[in-house]
Amino acid sequence: MNNFVLHTPTRILFGQGQIAQLATSIPANSKVLILFGGGSVKKNGVMDQVYSALQGFDLQEFGGIEPNPDFSTLMKAVEIVKRDKITFLLAVGGGSVLDGTKFIAAAALYPQDPWHILETGGAEIEQALPVGSVLTLPATGSESNRSAVINRRATHDKRAFRSNHLFPLFAVLDPVYTYSLPPRQIANGVVDAFVHTIEQYLTFPVDARVQDRFAEGLLLTLIEEGPRALAEPENYDVRANVMWSATMALNGLIGAGVPQDWSTHMLGHELTALHGIDHAQTLAIVLPSLLNIKRDTKREKLLQYAERVWGITDGSEAERIDGAIAATREFFERMGIATRMSDYQLDGSSIPALLEKLAEKGLTALGERQDITLEISRQIYLDAR
Amino acid sequence: MNNFVLHTPTRILFGQGQIAQLATSIPANSKVLILFGGGSVKKNGVMDQVYSALQGFDLQEFGGIEPNPDFSTLMKAVEIVKRDKITFLLAVGGGSVLDGTKFIAAAALYPQDPWHILETGGAEIEQALPVGSVLTLPATGSESNRSAVINRRATHDKRAFRSNHLFPLFAVLDPVYTYSLPPRQIANGVVDAFVHTIEQYLTFPVDARVQDRFAEGLLLTLIEEGPRALAEPENYDVRANVMWSATMALNGLIGAGVPQDWSTHMLGHELTALHGIDHAQTLAIVLPSLLNIKRDTKREKLLQYAERVWGITDGSEAERIDGAIAATREFFERMGIATRMSDYQLDGSSIPALLEKLAEKGLTALGERQDITLEISRQIYLDAR
Repeated sequence: MNNFVLHTPTRILFGQGQIAQLATSIPANSKVLILFGGGSVKKNGVMDQVYSALQGFDLQEFGGIEPNPDFSTLMKAVEIVKRDKITFLLAVGGGSVLDGTKFIAAAALYPQDPWHILETGGAEIEQALPVGSVLTLPATGSESNRSAVINRRATHDKRAFRSNHLFPLFAVLDPVYTYSLPPRQIANGVVDAFVHTIEQYLTFPVDARVQDRFAEGLLLTLIEEGPRALAEPENYDVRANVMWSATMALNGLIGAGVPQDWSTHMLGHELTALHGIDHAQTLAIVLPSLLNIKRDTKREKLLQYAERVWGITDGSEAERIDGAIAATREFFERMGIATRMSDYQLDGSSIPALLEKLAEKGLTALGERQDITLEISRQIYLDAR
Repeated sequence: MNNFVLHTPTRILFGQGQIAQLATSIPANSKVLILFGGGSVKKNGVMDQVYSALQGFDLQEFGGIEPNPDFSTLMKAVEIVKRDKITFLLAVGGGSVLDGTKFIAAAALYPQDPWHILETGGAEIEQALPVGSVLTLPATGSESNRSAVINRRATHDKRAFRSNHLFPLFAVLDPVYTYSLPPRQIANGVVDAFVHTIEQYLTFPVDARVQDRFAEGLLLTLIEEGPRALAEPENYDVRANVMWSATMALNGLIGAGVPQDWSTHMLGHELTALHGIDHAQTLAIVLPSLLNIKRDTKREKLLQYAERVWGITDGSEAERIDGAIAATREFFERMGIATRMSDYQLDGSSIPALLEKLAEKGLTALGERQDITLEISRQIYLDAR
């Protein structure tokens, strides 16, 4: 097992009706800015519950944070925070609203041009406004970690940043809030959480048995419950299991002390930035291709994955690995997420442009062994057509 | 899944050499009291490393905190804390030192007689000194939770308390520090962590799939690594897996949103209080007997446990449950922990006195269904002879 530091300070308030704890979770006398996305939280009653829970607080709203939140949108919120001396940010929505809110929290107190936060990956953040959240879409894990991803459409940029100052103070996770989500968003969330788990698991073994078992437990749960979440949208326990899996997949726990390979996210980000494809769709495109191309260096964990997650124990090693990769692809397809570029009307002609963006960011040695060069990324994209 | 609140704010510093982070983990200008047990940390070099890491801090020591820490011992430390205006408590040792330190942290700022903390289970604690730890014995999970257990030998009392003010700020977990532990302490630690996991798992199903898979992952890891920890005392990864399992078994994670049954601990505590038997030994005595007597109300989870943890899928339901209970007992014995009262020279004649203590504390309706009456506790003790 590798050395690690693990800090998971976000207080989780999980279950139906937990929004009632909102008022005692936000510091008294806070001046609160409520951030949200396209407005579904106003239609489905979640925002009404937020207002009802926060009676007596000084509240303002900022809506319109889009999926893959855009720098220019968020900067408008930063201006409001500064102008109105906001002291607490409450994100009501999914991972994009959370990520955008984290950016606003840091940018509002940042002494330089806030784009610098993204250029430096958050390394120079020294303070941030406190953030809490009411999560409505289980997927990214952003509700209890210190990371976020922001887009700048003007320059086709998508960048991640992180800071110890960005752990949310609390997260309200009420599975009922996910009942009204469109199937595509649930499917995206399940695939996102699945790939987060894979990226902290399918590398090389370091004899970290608890982390492996926990990761396998999340994968098994998502495989069992993901399709049911689509088929039975108001099954509370199913939605609860999906929601809790997504949070656990990216709060630092399963990745503590093990190698990680975030190249699926890196390659996927460029597909979103250039073509506007949903984040989870890009992961479903990239992962099967990547696992196949890196099957030799990931051999031991692929075999473990085949056996413990998919129950594949018969056949040669190559057959078992083939079986595990095929099962992964089939799972994504079963969730309604297509796994080929061609399914999204892409013929591969943009691959040079995708690689150029990777090169520009210096992402030329990805993966747990830093051996995914631009040439290997090219092969991954090519095989994913 | 049941509703839950989960807060795990303790920063975990895990791995060889992590003690180097001690100085940046304790607030600058703290007046630190270092608490420890029988002095093994002075012999094995851990205390030297603590002093080396904390050069420049104002340091004092308080040693002699015994296993099952005694109220009167701890009250001596409380006097020192008050007299010398200590501002930070650093526990260097195992669960008993941690638990004792938590008591001192609360008692030093408690406006009433500190025994009141134990009479009220900590419910009225409103503040506590900050606590950090350097853990040398993986077992109780106390390093990252808000609970503790204290004895008062003068009255044969053993009582638990908890408070949100008692989460340690950080825990240094270096598996190397466990190399020099006597086998009995390693065995006790593995059994303690195993039973903690069982008590949050072997109840009735609430379709909490992540929690179940995580619990099963800990049990499988302890079963695989426990005997190896005895056979290969300086195998780093084995000790790391045991250490991490013990922390994860009792930081609140696997118990979030599920029924719990702490009756094994409750019945065991009385055996320690009256007869001085090691804590883990009492659990090994009580658990197999309890599982057998409660086999009907725990039926579904016992069958799941039999299959997923012990791989028992053949035979009738009764046979599979018998097999799982027998495997549990054999595991404890394989760890060198005897599982019958008679192994500890007890013939059962003290059972009325044990039951009297349970009655005195009002522990007359234990278990996840509150259906373990005094009469059922009597049967559990009787069958455990």
